[in-house]
Amino acid sequence: MSQTRVDIAIIGTGPAGVSAALTAKIRNKSVLLFGKKELSGKVIKSHTILNYPGLPEVSGEDMAKAMKDHLDRMGIEITEEQVTNVYAMGEYFAIQGAKNMYEASSVILATGVMPGKLLPGEEANLGRGVSYCATCDAALYKGKEATVLGYSPKEEEEAEFLAEVADRVYYVPVYSEEPGISADNIEIIKGTPKEIRREDNKSILVLGDREIASDGIFVLRDAVSPGQLVPGLETEGAHIITDRDMSTSIKGLYAAGDITGTPYQDAKAVGEGNVAAISAVGYLASIKAQKEV
Amino acid sequence: MSQTRVDIAIIGTGPAGVSAALTAKIRNKSVLLFGKKELSGKVIKSHTILNYPGLPEVSGEDMAKAMKDHLDRMGIEITEEQVTNVYAMGEYFAIQGAKNMYEASSVILATGVMPGKLLPGEEANLGRGVSYCATCDAALYKGKEATVLGYSPKEEEEAEFLAEVADRVYYVPVYSEEPGISADNIEIIKGTPKEIRREDNKSILVLGDREIASDGIFVLRDAVSPGQLVPGLETEGAHIITDRDMSTSIKGLYAAGDITGTPYQDAKAVGEGNVAAISAVGYLASIKAQKEV
Repeated sequence: MSQTRVDIAIIGTGPAGVSAALTAKIRNKSVLLFGKKELSGKVIKSHTILNYPGLPEVSGEDMAKAMKDHLDRMGIEITEEQVTNVYAMGEYFAIQGAKNMYEASSVILATGVMPGKLLPGEEANLGRGVSYCATCDAALYKGKEATVLGYSPKEEEEAEFLAEVADRVYYVPVYSEEPGISADNIEIIKGTPKEIRREDNKSILVLGDREIASDGIFVLRDAVSPGQLVPGLETEGAHIITDRDMSTSIKGLYAAGDITGTPYQDAKAVGEGNVAAISAVGYLASIKAQKEV
Repeated sequence: MSQTRVDIAIIGTGPAGVSAALTAKIRNKSVLLFGKKELSGKVIKSHTILNYPGLPEVSGEDMAKAMKDHLDRMGIEITEEQVTNVYAMGEYFAIQGAKNMYEASSVILATGVMPGKLLPGEEANLGRGVSYCATCDAALYKGKEATVLGYSPKEEEEAEFLAEVADRVYYVPVYSEEPGISADNIEIIKGTPKEIRREDNKSILVLGDREIASDGIFVLRDAVSPGQLVPGLETEGAHIITDRDMSTSIKGLYAAGDITGTPYQDAKAVGEGNVAAISAVGYLASIKAQKEV
């Protein structure tokens, strides 16, 4: 389903995305903010933040609450749909969500930085038995077997959803909490993921002491690698290369927050979100001026 | 009077300076923060700030209060002394205050941006009859005449102080409020300043409809031009040229906030102050490592 084209799509509801959304909104732009109602797992898990000016000794939970309250007051809604790809179409961007397609004249990426590195073989096998989105690709696993690598307990829900379609699901939790999974056809397998291989039409997840072979592997993290999200985007390791105005190698596409590099700090993210929004507003004015010529 | 050398001197108490000070402090660096107890005239005068994440619909006064409270809680004091010059000495920076000399291993400039442009002739005559600091140069005007160009009502105090030393002071208010000056030897002259000239050992302030000749002109604004503050610093107009890590053309010297360029926004300033502090911390570690080799 295609929707009305918005001025600015912002992907991510950490401090950078929230800041970008607030500034875009007060500049009277239409905004589509993708993220989570709880804003950011990383912020919520922060113990005490001492150096975000104006909110002394604030817990991560209270900071997220203050920011959510701010969004609510400004009438900014959050679209809780995972974005799997952003395509630069020249005049606009096509945003592939897990359920819908969206269009925006400009995009601000504020998805945070992936904890840790990609697994060897992960990127090479993307789309060939490796998927980042259960909602998107579950249908392909009807009557088949899938492996789910879950980087946080909330991915257990995704595994249960997959198990409704697939014959069998192997669930590998990459966290310390004990998984609370009820479906009979989900097998929990503990171990440290080392590598992904594709062999004889099977996807192999290599753990420290064993291997799991299935029809496909779902790698479910909070953030995906920016190069995977936006084909053609210039990156340096896990980070997007940006200029002082938060512009990237793709015209009309901006980035803000941890995804642009260290320091991974709330104040820095908030500042970059603000700058990215102002830059996007300037870009929108420039393309409007071109059309009027 | 020379003092103990601090790790990081931060000049300016707007959002950028406050943010830099908080981050430097939690990184266990000794900090010297130059500014004003009321933090920033520009922030205080802001009507309502809508897009500083976490403080919805905050008045400028309340934002300054929240930031001052944050500094207080972190035990960060403000040194209320005007900084007139910063000199890069190689191993450290010498900071010339109106009363004392200070030393710091690194410096963060967060002085804000000068409202409007320099007057024609202002920079050329700096030190030749043009001064930015009444406290510094008043003694030179014993028995002489001085002109004071005050860009805000608080400069009236400076004019009164000068009038205690000088024979006669011409005070030109560059604001709408009616000056409340009591000294008999101060003459208030209204008009729009156009130019500064030096002729026959007199400094001439050219107004729209008349000229004032005196022994020297004090130009009193909230901020001074960065090139004047730090000799040799690379600037572009009123702005300091900075890299993504807020470094400038001088090693160990960082800049943050409005002084680095648009957008002039609190969120952007806070982010840059944070990044500048982290970069300064990294710089301090690198010079320490060099010494240990």
